[in-house]
Amino acid sequence: MYGAGDVRVEDVPDSVVKESTDALVRVTASCICGSDLHPYHSMPSDEGPVYMGHEFIGVVEDTGSDVSTLAKGDLVVAPFAYSDGTCQFCRAGLQTSCEHGGFWDGLPTEGGQTEAVRVPLADGTLVKLPTDADPALLPSLLTLSDVYGTGYHAAKAGNVTPGSTVTVIGDGAVGLLAVLSARQLGAERIILMGRHESRTDLGRDFGATDVVAERGEEGITRVRDLTGGFGTEVVLEAVGHMPAYEQAIGVVRPGGTISRVGVPQYDDAPVGFASLFGGNIRLAGGPAPTRAYIEELLPAVLDGTVDPGRVFDRTIGLDEVPDGYRAMDDREALKVLVTP
Amino acid sequence: MYGAGDVRVEDVPDSVVKESTDALVRVTASCICGSDLHPYHSMPSDEGPVYMGHEFIGVVEDTGSDVSTLAKGDLVVAPFAYSDGTCQFCRAGLQTSCEHGGFWDGLPTEGGQTEAVRVPLADGTLVKLPTDADPALLPSLLTLSDVYGTGYHAAKAGNVTPGSTVTVIGDGAVGLLAVLSARQLGAERIILMGRHESRTDLGRDFGATDVVAERGEEGITRVRDLTGGFGTEVVLEAVGHMPAYEQAIGVVRPGGTISRVGVPQYDDAPVGFASLFGGNIRLAGGPAPTRAYIEELLPAVLDGTVDPGRVFDRTIGLDEVPDGYRAMDDREALKVLVTP
Repeated sequence: MYGAGDVRVEDVPDSVVKESTDALVRVTASCICGSDLHPYHSMPSDEGPVYMGHEFIGVVEDTGSDVSTLAKGDLVVAPFAYSDGTCQFCRAGLQTSCEHGGFWDGLPTEGGQTEAVRVPLADGTLVKLPTDADPALLPSLLTLSDVYGTGYHAAKAGNVTPGSTVTVIGDGAVGLLAVLSARQLGAERIILMGRHESRTDLGRDFGATDVVAERGEEGITRVRDLTGGFGTEVVLEAVGHMPAYEQAIGVVRPGGTISRVGVPQYDDAPVGFASLFGGNIRLAGGPAPTRAYIEELLPAVLDGTVDPGRVFDRTIGLDEVPDGYRAMDDREALKVLVTP
Repeated sequence: MYGAGDVRVEDVPDSVVKESTDALVRVTASCICGSDLHPYHSMPSDEGPVYMGHEFIGVVEDTGSDVSTLAKGDLVVAPFAYSDGTCQFCRAGLQTSCEHGGFWDGLPTEGGQTEAVRVPLADGTLVKLPTDADPALLPSLLTLSDVYGTGYHAAKAGNVTPGSTVTVIGDGAVGLLAVLSARQLGAERIILMGRHESRTDLGRDFGATDVVAERGEEGITRVRDLTGGFGTEVVLEAVGHMPAYEQAIGVVRPGGTISRVGVPQYDDAPVGFASLFGGNIRLAGGPAPTRAYIEELLPAVLDGTVDPGRVFDRTIGLDEVPDGYRAMDDREALKVLVTP
């Protein structure tokens, strides 16, 4: 990405192992993220070019001398942050705050939307997948990199438990997988706020009990009407823009929790008596430590209990990536899978 | 209170039972709250006069026809919000969000800093105390109205558990009782940020393991130095002003919780990637449903295990209330007990 709206596919030197803890992964599947659209809208051209993509599955091609759990030929999935797996935060399941880790954004010449990626701290970061996994499962396995784990993190950070009432704001891939996750955690009622019918239909398949297409005050009123006037105990905010935050405040019940996983495109927001404080509303969430959830979520993906890969509605080759951004930005595609 | 800085003691008509669910309580002890200082600083004179005081112990003098659990002569303590005790929020222990309740502030001609108070929804609101309680326990029992329950709420909403590391911001009565509460809930390390030595000494008696007198960036650095560079898992914010919020952001550990019980004197605050989101920091707290905690906290007060009444360092009569405000505002008194 050279700047806002400017994505190019170029031949560059192959990535190689640099540190003894690196692995080189040949990408077999990656994708474009809703969060990639933020720089696609706003990145100044003097900050580019940067390699894009932070979700991928691939095959280990090479490992540094200190990598002990991976070998050439292993099929692996990479979470969207790399982490050492041993520091106090990793041990606590908060790999996004790893003392030695980071996000792919911080490595401007590595990215999943390529043929190969140098993965730092490979032992801590990568998770091996069964090499005999049915290729039809690939899209679902790929969601473990980010969108499924992020939806699941929203639900966990929002403390969804059996019987919870939940509103999900946003019908992008993360919002839809927040619906799926809330359902998995036993939520009784799941109201999905979104206005793209094909997406909200998928949301219903994933477990949404109600869909509210209206936004702003009108949407808030609809959710309150559906919930005896008070809103839901949990709100999962999967957008990141201020109107979604304000909507969350409007539909959360006193004593409830707003869990954010949409990367906030704002710094300050209402938190005073009238918004959060007066009703003892909790504000939770953050970048999802998807690494923490992969082993937990993998079995149901492998045995077909859940099919989060349904969020992919288009598959393209590397050459078509610029058009993939355009299609997602135009809401023509929900989520685009890239096969190099 | 007629306006900022203008507190007067006047003869007014006696309060009487108006609704069938009211009780009339003759006040035997009340006090001035740190939160009373907010209007003392800023109340426009056209919003006055209002009766002040929301913390009191007293004797039931009269009851409405629907009051079934209280009788003339009962010694009672009133939480700082009245509540029906039966709605969904009261049953969930969130009496400050009672569907039919409210705060004393909403009743401009009732208040604890008087001789008698009409208490709405008396069955739900008031808690009976043993009439033979040692008079020496009166100050501690009075803290159940607000400051002890509020400090306890901070710790509960902050999810303090055995072994937690905690920073308490503010050495007022609520901050000190947040220290006591964190200790009761098993916190291992409690860093009290406050600069009034007589208060922080009391904080040490209540269980603070460290005291940091510095504020702002310097205070943040001190707390980080004390905690291996990362701050504490829990921060209890007992002030309500923006610098305290910023300090909380500075000393909370990734994955940690900021629990606010100081009434926010701001609407918007930083909640974006750099403040809350990036580190998956939770923001919790609100007005304390002290009603929910009175029965739980009462036994240790009655048997002397805890002595939260030590926060009172001055006792005055009703006539001296204006000077009591001045003394608290000048930080000459920590908390003033009023005996009509």
